[in-house]
Amino acid sequence: MTDTNALPERLLLGSGPSPVPERVLAALALPTLGHLDPAFGEVMDEIGDLLRQALVTENRVAFPVSGTGSAGMEAMVANLIEPGDRVVVGVHGLFGERMADEIARHGGEVVRVEGEWGRALDPQALIDAVHDGPAPAALFVVHGETSTGVAQPLDGLADAIHDRDGLFLLDCVTSLTGHPLRLDEAGVDAAFSGSQKCLNAPPGLAPFTVGDRALEKLRARATPVPSWYLDLNLILAYVDGEGGRTYHHTAPTNMNVALREALRLAVVDEWLPTRWERHRRAHEALRDAFAALGFTRLAPDGEGLHPLLAIRVPDGIDEAAVRKRLLLDHDIEISGGLGPLAGKVWRIGVMGVGADKAPQELLVAAAAKELGLNAGEALAALHEGWSA
Amino acid sequence: MTDTNALPERLLLGSGPSPVPERVLAALALPTLGHLDPAFGEVMDEIGDLLRQALVTENRVAFPVSGTGSAGMEAMVANLIEPGDRVVVGVHGLFGERMADEIARHGGEVVRVEGEWGRALDPQALIDAVHDGPAPAALFVVHGETSTGVAQPLDGLADAIHDRDGLFLLDCVTSLTGHPLRLDEAGVDAAFSGSQKCLNAPPGLAPFTVGDRALEKLRARATPVPSWYLDLNLILAYVDGEGGRTYHHTAPTNMNVALREALRLAVVDEWLPTRWERHRRAHEALRDAFAALGFTRLAPDGEGLHPLLAIRVPDGIDEAAVRKRLLLDHDIEISGGLGPLAGKVWRIGVMGVGADKAPQELLVAAAAKELGLNAGEALAALHEGWSA
Repeated sequence: MTDTNALPERLLLGSGPSPVPERVLAALALPTLGHLDPAFGEVMDEIGDLLRQALVTENRVAFPVSGTGSAGMEAMVANLIEPGDRVVVGVHGLFGERMADEIARHGGEVVRVEGEWGRALDPQALIDAVHDGPAPAALFVVHGETSTGVAQPLDGLADAIHDRDGLFLLDCVTSLTGHPLRLDEAGVDAAFSGSQKCLNAPPGLAPFTVGDRALEKLRARATPVPSWYLDLNLILAYVDGEGGRTYHHTAPTNMNVALREALRLAVVDEWLPTRWERHRRAHEALRDAFAALGFTRLAPDGEGLHPLLAIRVPDGIDEAAVRKRLLLDHDIEISGGLGPLAGKVWRIGVMGVGADKAPQELLVAAAAKELGLNAGEALAALHEGWSA
Repeated sequence: MTDTNALPERLLLGSGPSPVPERVLAALALPTLGHLDPAFGEVMDEIGDLLRQALVTENRVAFPVSGTGSAGMEAMVANLIEPGDRVVVGVHGLFGERMADEIARHGGEVVRVEGEWGRALDPQALIDAVHDGPAPAALFVVHGETSTGVAQPLDGLADAIHDRDGLFLLDCVTSLTGHPLRLDEAGVDAAFSGSQKCLNAPPGLAPFTVGDRALEKLRARATPVPSWYLDLNLILAYVDGEGGRTYHHTAPTNMNVALREALRLAVVDEWLPTRWERHRRAHEALRDAFAALGFTRLAPDGEGLHPLLAIRVPDGIDEAAVRKRLLLDHDIEISGGLGPLAGKVWRIGVMGVGADKAPQELLVAAAAKELGLNAGEALAALHEGWSA
């Protein structure tokens, strides 16, 4: 049996999980608290405050769902979509596909607005779909498509769906605190994220928020929420109870203490606009460095998702073999492509503490070595990007 | 803003979470691994092996669901119960009630076999319900009712439901490794547990297993699994994939490394029958100690759940006030009653490292003090129990 301490220490520069700072790991390993302990209640209250800051929202309801990002997606659909609801879904990558699947499983009628993997959707196409035909119950888009490294513009979307009395739903798993997003300004009614991307906490929690319009829809449901575990009506008695927290399920207490520490690092120690700007800069520096190695970004200018750089692998490279050597010989994790992009792209995380010059230097130098290229020009481009 | 290190250190002797040993906290805080890293794949493989040992099963499929115990319950129902399925459910406490609710949400027809909170169900009543009327798709019981401290005998149940071609489903959240349970011998087709009870890992994972009969039912479904997050068809490509792990959701990697360590402590460092016997002894010693303080066990002899001692609070005691002082002045957490037992019982965890003389001495001494009683007789009873 392997010794626990024999686990390798990787530099996590893939699509997530991202590098977890020592301070967050230390918080994770603090002695376990009970989920009904008032001291843990304070932790949950502070997480709510910090999440509101991170999401730039005044929503009263903001808490981490007790599961990974996909559990956040499922919580959104299980609570806010009823059988027969018509939902317009932007599909231009794996996570839009996944949402379409999820909505169909919950009896929703999916209206797909499709686009090329690697491009943003034309907001007008989404708006047209919202206005066309019977009123949709919701419009869903992925703010940061982790499968393609594309950031979706949200302009005009909230107005369009609100004109038809529907909800504006958002996946901000990869963008939260790494790409500019102001939830209330964008008119978002509900959103979910993940702990293991730009927040740099371990995977296992899904930051989640709903506004008043979404809560009204929840309260007006004709059918029970089909999930007991994710039923907001029950969860709210714990996360937002009048006069105390009523037991629903046992909250993952250690994970929440770690998430609180990660949120403090993200929105207290660093001012959110500064953090967004750092991610932009880190993204562009790394893009330029890989351009010098012959890799071009999948997303065109203006559509790149800062926390995730997806780049086309030049012909003739066995990308899986190089990634494997990066992992096993250099302890650096990056991600390959998914779906139609499998074997064609690399996806590199630019997330939280990973959005910095030092880890990027290690990656660029190691990648150049494994590709049999001189790293000089690429490192020079990286440094130029960071000194700009 | 509170300093992270200002969190209190509690002795967790409630209904869970239970005390987490230093070795498990240290494993939790090891540098985060990616969910597709081969080194993490080895962790998941070892967890599968250790879970099979803990559950005493040869089921190929044994893995932790990425959520708390209730997510394990939901995974069981979402995958194995289809709309219209008739399910016999034993209801004699909160967790049987919860399962009845969950099955109804999934369109199942619930046949309740009810019993008093604090008593085991008569197996014959369950068997009769299984034989009565149209064939049920499943029989569900709670092995260890955490709300009442009752262990449910399983004799004859598997044969009865298998005679009618249904599945035998079990909640072993609180009993796993703390109360005798041999899954294959008991004929169980699917079971779920929680990381934060007798395993002494932090809350956030739900050990889960299904056997061949359950997998057949899954494959024969007429409708899609209504949950994307918990769809076993998709999860199995990750936890039991031929030739590698296919991405489904991002596994909570740190939590799983901690769970592996906790499982090693439970079934490698300590032999399972020894561990069961230690829990029995700890339960009885603590029962005797509280009897000396005037508290009687809710469950009659022969029906007590070793990992959870539920005791009636004598008249005239403001139990909530005493519990609060135990928590805030002594840093000892115990739990109150739920549902019809609220205000009437204390529920004391006897779980893993908590099932030991030293923590029990601290609790008994503190409880005697806060009750204004002399601890001498109770401590003597405790010591006698441990020296027997």
